[in-house]
Amino acid sequence: MTTDPHPWAAEIDSLHAQIWTRLTRGVHDRRAPARHPTLATVDATGRPQARTVVLRGADAAAGTLSLYTDRHSAKVAELRANPLAALHVWDAAAHLQIRIEAEVAIETGPGVADVWASVPEPSRYAYSSTATPGRPIPEALAYTKTPDPAAFARLRLTVSAIDALHLGRAHHRRARFERADGWAGQWLVP
Amino acid sequence: MTTDPHPWAAEIDSLHAQIWTRLTRGVHDRRAPARHPTLATVDATGRPQARTVVLRGADAAAGTLSLYTDRHSAKVAELRANPLAALHVWDAAAHLQIRIEAEVAIETGPGVADVWASVPEPSRYAYSSTATPGRPIPEALAYTKTPDPAAFARLRLTVSAIDALHLGRAHHRRARFERADGWAGQWLVP
Repeated sequence: MTTDPHPWAAEIDSLHAQIWTRLTRGVHDRRAPARHPTLATVDATGRPQARTVVLRGADAAAGTLSLYTDRHSAKVAELRANPLAALHVWDAAAHLQIRIEAEVAIETGPGVADVWASVPEPSRYAYSSTATPGRPIPEALAYTKTPDPAAFARLRLTVSAIDALHLGRAHHRRARFERADGWAGQWLVP
Repeated sequence: MTTDPHPWAAEIDSLHAQIWTRLTRGVHDRRAPARHPTLATVDATGRPQARTVVLRGADAAAGTLSLYTDRHSAKVAELRANPLAALHVWDAAAHLQIRIEAEVAIETGPGVADVWASVPEPSRYAYSSTATPGRPIPEALAYTKTPDPAAFARLRLTVSAIDALHLGRAHHRRARFERADGWAGQWLVP
């Protein structure tokens, strides 16, 4: 008899709880898979765009997540035009895919001054007004970044739905959770 | 003096070559990061959707990639309506993010019979006409999958652009490569 390494996948409530356990671990553990999710947005031409981000906050009770970014980045322009986003995590050790649908609010300026104050000095170079991300340059290192609180943005994701897929040894399980029904959960064909 | 572990990141041609080396490795090595990229599409409501896929083919000379999927999956419906997709790879060992923009063709039926013939028997259960992926079911395991060649689809991605970001020890480098200019490459501010 083999022991199921992921007993939480068998019940819909424990599966939902495990999703938030993994997301929260991503905020606090630099080595956790949920530390570096993929954020997908839609650009002005109707094309999807996807990039790695760093998960900075997770609130299971509120169903919200947060990220930091340079407000001059393409993703911010895309989210201003279309605030619907997807956040994707593949947790190989848990055999768990987490697909999140969310609406994103962009927070800048005095409202996030306390967040900026908590950003470690070396990390502040990611938020700059002297070198716009994505601008063409003649040489690879022909740019200088100067930390600027005015360039800092927090993205607040209000989760509307989560699609979870667990790849078990013998069977796969998939469920969808929606804010609209209090995250009750519904099993789906994987 | 420390040796740069990724000398290929310094020149635009070697960076481009490295991208395709990593993608090709994903096709042949189950442990390579490019084995499991994230595919982003746009759904009928204009929302991005992202999910893990398995990279099945990479042709550097043609600039094409391929994936397999169940033709009844949501991603196929989304790609029929909007064939523009993004494919994302984060290769942690290489400190390299690969962001691919592509147009996707959906191939089914007799034209992919030879591909179906090459799919190992146990893997064929992923392509079924008896249980549509995403359909609600009363219990987690209330589904049966029966392999069906008519459910098999190959997605052919014709790459139009690649955005690559290398995170070096001291400096980051970012470049964009486009089919339109023969993949010449352009450095960008990271």
